Amino acid sequence: MAEERTLNRTAPTSDGIAEVAFGAGMTADIAEQPEVYARLADEQSGAIAAVAAEIARERPRFVVYTARGTSDHAALYAAYLTEIRLGIPASLASPSAITVFGARPDLSGALVVGVSQSGGSPDIAEVLRVGKESGARTLAVTNNAASPLASVADRHIDVSAGHERAVAATKTYTAELLALLMLIEGVRAGDGVLPEEERRAVAELPELARVVLEDDAAIRAAHRYRFADRVVTTGRGYAYPTAREAALKLMETSYLPALAFSGADLLHGPLAMTDPDVPVLAVVGNGPGGQAMRDVLGRLGERRADVVVIGPSDVMGSALRVASPAVDERYAPLLDILPLQRLALELALIRGENPDAPRGLRKVTQTM
Amino acid sequence: MAEERTLNRTAPTSDGIAEVAFGAGMTADIAEQPEVYARLADEQSGAIAAVAAEIARERPRFVVYTARGTSDHAALYAAYLTEIRLGIPASLASPSAITVFGARPDLSGALVVGVSQSGGSPDIAEVLRVGKESGARTLAVTNNAASPLASVADRHIDVSAGHERAVAATKTYTAELLALLMLIEGVRAGDGVLPEEERRAVAELPELARVVLEDDAAIRAAHRYRFADRVVTTGRGYAYPTAREAALKLMETSYLPALAFSGADLLHGPLAMTDPDVPVLAVVGNGPGGQAMRDVLGRLGERRADVVVIGPSDVMGSALRVASPAVDERYAPLLDILPLQRLALELALIRGENPDAPRGLRKVTQTM
Repeated sequence: MAEERTLNRTAPTSDGIAEVAFGAGMTADIAEQPEVYARLADEQSGAIAAVAAEIARERPRFVVYTARGTSDHAALYAAYLTEIRLGIPASLASPSAITVFGARPDLSGALVVGVSQSGGSPDIAEVLRVGKESGARTLAVTNNAASPLASVADRHIDVSAGHERAVAATKTYTAELLALLMLIEGVRAGDGVLPEEERRAVAELPELARVVLEDDAAIRAAHRYRFADRVVTTGRGYAYPTAREAALKLMETSYLPALAFSGADLLHGPLAMTDPDVPVLAVVGNGPGGQAMRDVLGRLGERRADVVVIGPSDVMGSALRVASPAVDERYAPLLDILPLQRLALELALIRGENPDAPRGLRKVTQTM
Repeated sequence: MAEERTLNRTAPTSDGIAEVAFGAGMTADIAEQPEVYARLADEQSGAIAAVAAEIARERPRFVVYTARGTSDHAALYAAYLTEIRLGIPASLASPSAITVFGARPDLSGALVVGVSQSGGSPDIAEVLRVGKESGARTLAVTNNAASPLASVADRHIDVSAGHERAVAATKTYTAELLALLMLIEGVRAGDGVLPEEERRAVAELPELARVVLEDDAAIRAAHRYRFADRVVTTGRGYAYPTAREAALKLMETSYLPALAFSGADLLHGPLAMTDPDVPVLAVVGNGPGGQAMRDVLGRLGERRADVVVIGPSDVMGSALRVASPAVDERYAPLLDILPLQRLALELALIRGENPDAPRGLRKVTQTM
């Protein structure tokens, strides 16, 4: 569908034999997500429940997440869940403190969780190795059970997203979100097994994801911003990782400078930067996070920013709304990101870029 | 000096009686920083040592920093110091988990530190209040001993920066950095008293700051980027908070979209966005953090980005260097930010903006 609207550009396949349309990989990855949700809930719930039960027994005194890029946004989501749903303090590690500056924090009684689709980033594996040495239990959440990260960790959760075609991560991101949600709700339950209410919410995700992916409002947003030279994304609480991930997708695929802020941080300075020429993608749920965004939307209105709202309710004064289902805000990140992935894909295509192979990037990024 | 190069615009003073030149407040705030360092080390070292000795006795099992905007970058610096110099795990709290979603993480044995120049942001005070309830000791680091944040905390450190004239924080930021550095090195010493080596390094700061502020390379960088429509800032480890703060200053005062990335995160996606039209401000120290940036600079070179290096050593292929003294990377954030503040100020002035009163911003930002 995207191809009809664009230049129908093609690129050689990796074996050089055939040619494929720009964005064919990312298009397929995005479309697969309802199926990924169904498969993960179906095939991995037993394994995840077993890990969750062990963590519930150990009751870590705090949880340190470590990740890079897209996976860092899944880790941020998990950190919110850990504090809000489990009452356990959670943080995102700065790997360089350990890998570059040799920090050896006392992690006895802690759980260190590495999140990485490839499991191949040396710094994340090193943080887990040092964590283990410093007394922590360790867990790897990856899409590659044979990866260095999975081997170094005490435990491993396979997000089972299957091979990802494009360099820009989409289905591995949402698979990480769901695996982490199932894990944390399993820990909350105590025995690892999801309570009926959570099981029902997880079971509904594939169908809700399908519906969201059918709505073309995201495509309209892409065309609206064809000539934008920057974009701001914002959200609060659970919606903040969505804002961050949307910004990264836009930067990776459309080379559009995209600045993500929590709604509160936006008011502490960067608000000055917004004006009628700056598109703002605001993720607004129908719970406390969305409520807390009302103030931010008001201030953006004063600055006459061009606001696109992603969420279940309309917001007065917004230029466009991308509708998403009215689920608990805890589940919203698994759905709200889908139209934003499509927006990034479409924007890249109409700008003549190939989002499957962004310039200067590799699928496995090795940093220390 | 800045005025000679610009439009000599003026704005009414707050009492409406006289007119002051655009940027007069920020110019004075920036120039005062050597004096602020001298005063803080002189007047507050006893009070800081007393707090440090208490924290050393209690030995918190982890430290949670909570802050917004500019102060969040001082908190990030302190988190690196806490892990690297003390071996105590440190994190930056997402206030909304507590203030919006009602999280009540178990913080027994933890230290919660609120950093805020005004001490007036309700969400930061609320995180400390909840922290206390949940078993943590609490500390406020502010420039206002009479603030709500200072009252709610068990202990308070006054950064003594004096009245800040401009809305964009400069001298309160560096005062927070130095107060946190003195605190953490005092905890490391055990009795709160800085060892001779640290005392000497702190004593040298005012003179080094004066020298850095006299160098006009930052002004040349501002003129170079007069017509830039975005900028990327980057650094690793201790230099990452400097990159973040430089980006915020540019957004607040010049309304320039500025994207800050740790050097490692830049390689995980946003690198695609850089091209010869994108200025990159890279903070490169002469220790492990700077060493780890070499890879990043190489990859930026491949993308032919326009790189300005801030640091003690020249880097091949950079467009311009802003020299800063060859101090331990731990001390570099107190000096490297100074030319970047001047760059933001100058860029605002030559673009005809008034950095003392950015559009849409207030000095005390109230968020929950």
